[in-house]
Amino acid sequence: MHKKGLLGELIQSLCCLPGVGPKSAQRMAFHLLQRDRNRGKLLADTLLRAIDDIGYCQHCRTLTEEDLCGICANDSRDHSIVCIVESPADVWVIDQATIFRGQYFVLHGRLSPLDGLGPDELGLDLLEQRLASGSIKELILATNSTVEGEATAYFIGELAKKHQVSASRIAHGVPMGGELEFIDSGTLSHAFNGRKVI
Amino acid sequence: MHKKGLLGELIQSLCCLPGVGPKSAQRMAFHLLQRDRNRGKLLADTLLRAIDDIGYCQHCRTLTEEDLCGICANDSRDHSIVCIVESPADVWVIDQATIFRGQYFVLHGRLSPLDGLGPDELGLDLLEQRLASGSIKELILATNSTVEGEATAYFIGELAKKHQVSASRIAHGVPMGGELEFIDSGTLSHAFNGRKVI
Repeated sequence: MHKKGLLGELIQSLCCLPGVGPKSAQRMAFHLLQRDRNRGKLLADTLLRAIDDIGYCQHCRTLTEEDLCGICANDSRDHSIVCIVESPADVWVIDQATIFRGQYFVLHGRLSPLDGLGPDELGLDLLEQRLASGSIKELILATNSTVEGEATAYFIGELAKKHQVSASRIAHGVPMGGELEFIDSGTLSHAFNGRKVI
Repeated sequence: MHKKGLLGELIQSLCCLPGVGPKSAQRMAFHLLQRDRNRGKLLADTLLRAIDDIGYCQHCRTLTEEDLCGICANDSRDHSIVCIVESPADVWVIDQATIFRGQYFVLHGRLSPLDGLGPDELGLDLLEQRLASGSIKELILATNSTVEGEATAYFIGELAKKHQVSASRIAHGVPMGGELEFIDSGTLSHAFNGRKVI
């Protein structure tokens, strides 16, 4: 009885956010209604606008409300180095964490034939056109370090080789500050095999 | 450059939710835009409706979109026992956790003269009218166990005494499953003083 109503609906809708369960949703709903109606309204308006307006960059396929995203439209960035990532979130984190000032290309997934994700679904036809046109000098493969991510990186590496474009893979190994004792064996064996002369 | 735009605005708006920092907001924004636009739209719509429509129950002052909340409108509940709480969230948790089937009265705060919160701001004039009318047989004081919450409970207890209505305070002590070793000394001393004959 008491759980129904608009408040119950709001709590249930908030549960669609990742990492938000019924308890946090409850706390969020009461917070928005009791302390922060103005910012709640702003959130709802911004969310509606974002859902309506945000599409994909024509050049790199990341999320943007313009035809070209801020990075592709920025002429001061190096257009000849392209970092290949699986998702728009990866663009965001790499751009925050590194000094990389080239461009990106978002696959929106990884090669996974069983899920119907082949080269065309990942936009690799578009990427290959660009490799063929000679506008790209270097590819940095920053797909995830999963079996499918590695296979995707290998596949794109072969494409780059075909068009005489140099390709590199981001380094994998022990995370900075990581203690060996607590690292999983896969990472540790990878770190051993990938050791560098100092 | 890259952080601006509608996506940046959305991430910033999501930070207004309690317990959500920039990292979670980022994850939520990408999740909503990439996997869950329909439920994102539903969330935004429900939030707008809730902010516009939800007000306060005329009888118990909790949050509701009706004139009377589901609890006050429910005739099968006992109208003569009233549980006094500080916030609408408390109504929600008490109703989920207990078998209490009386009614509630929401103070929206606690007595705090320095913050300008006196008896009238907490709706105690309304409560006193109801105590005087004889419609209430018992008060359960479930304000928080803070100095101000205790003072508020004491004040309302005196009101009840004035009108010959019995009032009780919820029990305070060691939480169920709590190990004595990890309980703070205030709670432990309270639990000692409040010991019961078995």
